[in-house]
Amino acid sequence: MAGVFDNPVLPYFAFYATMVVLKTMAMSFVTTFHRRTKGVFANPEDVGIAPGKGKIATDESVERVRRCHLNDLENVIPFVLVGLLYTASGPSLSSALLHFRIFTGARIFHTIAYLFALPQPSRGLSFLVGYLATLSMAYNVLSSAKY
Amino acid sequence: MAGVFDNPVLPYFAFYATMVVLKTMAMSFVTTFHRRTKGVFANPEDVGIAPGKGKIATDESVERVRRCHLNDLENVIPFVLVGLLYTASGPSLSSALLHFRIFTGARIFHTIAYLFALPQPSRGLSFLVGYLATLSMAYNVLSSAKY
Amino acid sequence: MAGVFDNPVLPYFAFYATMVVLKTMAMSFVTTFHRRTKGVFANPEDVGIAPGKGKIATDESVERVRRCHLNDLENVIPFVLVGLLYTASGPSLSSALLHFRIFTGARIFHTIAYLFALPQPSRGLSFLVGYLATLSMAYNVLSSAKY
Repeated sequence: MAGVFDNPVLPYFAFYATMVVLKTMAMSFVTTFHRRTKGVFANPEDVGIAPGKGKIATDESVERVRRCHLNDLENVIPFVLVGLLYTASGPSLSSALLHFRIFTGARIFHTIAYLFALPQPSRGLSFLVGYLATLSMAYNVLSSAKY
Repeated sequence: MAGVFDNPVLPYFAFYATMVVLKTMAMSFVTTFHRRTKGVFANPEDVGIAPGKGKIATDESVERVRRCHLNDLENVIPFVLVGLLYTASGPSLSSALLHFRIFTGARIFHTIAYLFALPQPSRGLSFLVGYLATLSMAYNVLSSAKY
Repeated sequence: MAGVFDNPVLPYFAFYATMVVLKTMAMSFVTTFHRRTKGVFANPEDVGIAPGKGKIATDESVERVRRCHLNDLENVIPFVLVGLLYTASGPSLSSALLHFRIFTGARIFHTIAYLFALPQPSRGLSFLVGYLATLSMAYNVLSSAKY
């Protein structure tokens, strides 16, 4: 099946885009893990699934994962959308790989910094690096786009 | 205009992807319906639009729809993004349709289970089935991607 | 590099899609601006970055930007996803430009109406105009899709 991708950058974009989307999706399971171990749920029908101690409540460890998840939606999805248009615009492979790898590395570090509450500015800087990688791709897209 | 799609799986992906995006967008109207009938709003400037009884407040029926909407953003968008790359990777039509239909069915059932608060594990299982369909497509993408 | 886009509508879609994604991403900085000037943060490790007055709290001006940001995720991302499939389906350029421009204009107005709390129905109508533009593209996609 390999080789069906007819844009030379697309097989690389496919790898990094899928990795960061999987990383985002993993937040669902971290949330569920915290909800079940702490017994704190958002829906009455969920309370029964943690035996003995479930209740409707908010918990800081759950909320932290949810903030990280929402931050991923706010940053990873723009990366994938802009990155796809950037890939279609015909960048050089070396330039494209630089953008994809910087973004992916920054977001993995961002997740670690968020979930383990590392001292700032570690999380802020990793957010910014990923953000700038997407902005740089957006600039490239706009340079070859029409309006 | 039909026939412009040059990837044989793309016209099918276009159908299922658009359906689940429309389902996600429909949550906006369910939220608005509950906000107006209950008169509970998030913004001061919105209060006047429900005559007589509007106020700034949270309401469990509104929050339930909003949780369902956010869960859609967390799952439907990864499906569309990964699904597009999966389609580009050249899967067989039968395998692709299996993934698209299982995901779409699972998310429609998930919405019903969420909005009507069906007993668990109905919602949890439908979440998991959709999640696994996306993971399986991601595995296929990574198998033919380069890094 | 320009001219790599092989679908005649794609260079135009790339422009409008990137613009609305950048608009969505800008909400992150408006949130950070309000958090820092008001000294209200969501994470304990962030408190120290606003000298003297930081605390864990919610603030209406921050929450307003966050609601606008989430509303963008709920509407701009469906526009880009459906718009990409719509572009792939081979629409006429004039029809496509009409959809892209109406959506982009409506969302810029929506953001102004939200952040400055303009009297309703200004925000509601701009939401609806953008929503209908996406629905119209979805209708066109489904017309040429297969299931």
